Amino acid sequence: MVAATSENPQRRRAPTSLLRDLQERFGDRFSVSAAILDRHGQDESYHAGMAPDAVVFARSTEDVADIVRLCATTDTPIIPFGTGTSLEGGIAALQGGVSVDLSMMNDVIEVNVPDLDCRVQAGVTRKQVNTHLRDTGLFFPIDPGADASLGGMAATRASGTNAVRYGTMKDNVLGLTAVMADGRIIRTGGRARKSAAGYDLTRLLVGSEGTLGIITELTLRLQGIPEAVSAAVCPFPSIADAVNAVIVTIQAGIPVARIEFLDDVQMGAVNAFSKLDYAVAPTLFFEFHGTEASVVEQVETVKQIAADHGGHEFRWATRQEDRSKLWQARHDAYYAAVSLRPGAKGMATDVCVPISRLADCMVETKADNDAAGVLAPMVGHVGDGNFHLSYVIDPTSPQEIEAASALHERLVLRALAMGGTCTGEHGVGYGKISFVEREHGDAVAVMRQIKDALDPKGILNPGKVIRM
Amino acid sequence: MVAATSENPQRRRAPTSLLRDLQERFGDRFSVSAAILDRHGQDESYHAGMAPDAVVFARSTEDVADIVRLCATTDTPIIPFGTGTSLEGGIAALQGGVSVDLSMMNDVIEVNVPDLDCRVQAGVTRKQVNTHLRDTGLFFPIDPGADASLGGMAATRASGTNAVRYGTMKDNVLGLTAVMADGRIIRTGGRARKSAAGYDLTRLLVGSEGTLGIITELTLRLQGIPEAVSAAVCPFPSIADAVNAVIVTIQAGIPVARIEFLDDVQMGAVNAFSKLDYAVAPTLFFEFHGTEASVVEQVETVKQIAADHGGHEFRWATRQEDRSKLWQARHDAYYAAVSLRPGAKGMATDVCVPISRLADCMVETKADNDAAGVLAPMVGHVGDGNFHLSYVIDPTSPQEIEAASALHERLVLRALAMGGTCTGEHGVGYGKISFVEREHGDAVAVMRQIKDALDPKGILNPGKVIRM
Repeated sequence: MVAATSENPQRRRAPTSLLRDLQERFGDRFSVSAAILDRHGQDESYHAGMAPDAVVFARSTEDVADIVRLCATTDTPIIPFGTGTSLEGGIAALQGGVSVDLSMMNDVIEVNVPDLDCRVQAGVTRKQVNTHLRDTGLFFPIDPGADASLGGMAATRASGTNAVRYGTMKDNVLGLTAVMADGRIIRTGGRARKSAAGYDLTRLLVGSEGTLGIITELTLRLQGIPEAVSAAVCPFPSIADAVNAVIVTIQAGIPVARIEFLDDVQMGAVNAFSKLDYAVAPTLFFEFHGTEASVVEQVETVKQIAADHGGHEFRWATRQEDRSKLWQARHDAYYAAVSLRPGAKGMATDVCVPISRLADCMVETKADNDAAGVLAPMVGHVGDGNFHLSYVIDPTSPQEIEAASALHERLVLRALAMGGTCTGEHGVGYGKISFVEREHGDAVAVMRQIKDALDPKGILNPGKVIRM
Repeated sequence: MVAATSENPQRRRAPTSLLRDLQERFGDRFSVSAAILDRHGQDESYHAGMAPDAVVFARSTEDVADIVRLCATTDTPIIPFGTGTSLEGGIAALQGGVSVDLSMMNDVIEVNVPDLDCRVQAGVTRKQVNTHLRDTGLFFPIDPGADASLGGMAATRASGTNAVRYGTMKDNVLGLTAVMADGRIIRTGGRARKSAAGYDLTRLLVGSEGTLGIITELTLRLQGIPEAVSAAVCPFPSIADAVNAVIVTIQAGIPVARIEFLDDVQMGAVNAFSKLDYAVAPTLFFEFHGTEASVVEQVETVKQIAADHGGHEFRWATRQEDRSKLWQARHDAYYAAVSLRPGAKGMATDVCVPISRLADCMVETKADNDAAGVLAPMVGHVGDGNFHLSYVIDPTSPQEIEAASALHERLVLRALAMGGTCTGEHGVGYGKISFVEREHGDAVAVMRQIKDALDPKGILNPGKVIRM
């Protein structure tokens, strides 16, 4: 077991006086019930959780500021909580402290249709915002597998299947409201499409995983729903064939909206989990957005590229409900993978490499896993050079964790040697700190300087991104 | 005259011992010649320049690190210099110090065609990199008016006419090498298309104007040269008609590559300066990129939108040399504006507003200028909601500077009230610090904390972005 306690040099339990003050201020939105504490300390990953000492359900930015100010007086850690769907232990209260649950901050505050933007509270989820936008002709494209909160997605710099066309949270957050470590409320960015007015605090907070400030509101960039959408599934003879088709597609500049890879193991898992009947082979899922004419043009070009790489059987999903089923199956890939083995959890990996190295990286990785005999379905946002393995392991088995960790380490070193990154979209949490150190070297010391300047007491989500 | 000295509470002249050490280390790449000092302290703007005490021509990141270390030992300011084309006094040595000229760092280090990226030294200019890329089928899209250095463009978060389609420097820098205030060399980002591995130091340094670190190398994202390119010029009956045509185009999601506005005064100036014969009327310059079919489709749609707003006379430039002439004329708009009045300089403004407010903002601003009787040609990257006026003034006339400054202040307040920013792409320099404070409020204190943490002696380009 990866023990959270090994990362816990000093526990800073919330003192009784603080708990009393919080209870007084927040009433029944304050909880120390064991079930609630446990749920707020354990995410969806194999990482050992750690329950906080208390949970407060915030309703407003001012609530969050009050919680932070109260905690700051006693140097008590504060751990922001959205939906608990982190994959890197992001919500574990490694030193104890207070979990700030933002799920009641779920108002879509305003939608500016003519400007293609909206402002939401941090607890709004990606599906909720899109449901809200349904009649506007607009949508928000970022779609991690889980129905995560937008605050959490910003905090982890999430992306998903649409990133190849629409970018990641880095590109789609125009501005933020955040509570800093001393309880100050700041607003970053704005509604203009671009600005050169000072340091880019928006981009600094996006991806900082609650360690520099707590995001409470977001201004999001929206996209027009395309006139035409078409999706298709195509099996390939091998991983290399599928990935090489992707590489040619991207290099040709075709503006595919989604281009997702699933290996044969993952396709078997998806068929079983989502009751589908696709070929059990390395497979690409495509989606094309545009005008009617441009979608036809994109489809024709990509079909030719696929055929050149042995992908001949496009299976189309043009009706909205067929596409929804297809993409829901893709989004459930992680759950499908872990369901291959009852009681197992997935150790999710997340490397991203320059696209010219993607086929090499995936093929070498698959060979390494196969040699080790570890069950590890593979999926990828391959248009970005990003792919995931889920090592499906018994989370109570030190041997299995050790074996998977060794494979993961080799995978990360392979990706770094190819000019890649240890995490494309899941974030660092407490699971990847040492990899970030290898990836960024001396730049980590600069990250540390920023952390120490903005959170001198180290109370904001301690032990995530940066060592405690 | 906006006196640089009024921003200069303490001069920190480079001590003789430091100058001796620098001369010893850099030989004939060290200069204290008056002509060279003057050239390094005055940019292209109306802002009062201030010459540095010495200039060192760096050839490598290690050179820059050596200069910074030597300067740090005597708390001497360091001012990075690319091409000197700043519009906000970015290179003025407000407290004295050493100008680090990066123009000899002009190597394109590597081009990775399959991955659509390249690595350059910071002194490479935008035209140089595109000349270098000529035979690769790739190009770098960011194009401020001047042939600026890529390091300077990153430092000011520059953009230009292509930003509506391809984004700004924020979106097109994958990673950086930078020298920090203590001489440490760090590398940020990487070649992967996305990463969630720690704080986004790349985006923090982009737009920091040399105040947090000195950018010495950049990894740039490149674009494929489109299969088809078409450009056109179209006059409109009024500013509102032209801008409303833009608004409809953007809201319709048409992926125009460029959509630029010039008012009647600017068109007259452009015709005179670039020897052209366009109608002297509010005018849009368009460029469309894509496949042959998609360009035709875009053109047909935009022609219809223009016609709906009284824009009936598209004048096409399909040959490469005609397009080059067209865009060179657009890039020279600032020089054309100031050439309207011999000896004058332009006080350039740079607000950017949500696109739904753009017509209102431009029309109100034009009325304000006209009422004041100030010559102020207007151009705009209107697809982004960004537009520039150049108040064409006598830089030695306090009255003219005061009148233009009052108009500028009203313009910025108008833009901020509409949810906009005081600078879309020129940066802050020392000219817009008070506007940034109005725009960002308490967030400026966070910027200050970061500055103090990363540059505790305040030696990196002091007095820019953040008050001294």
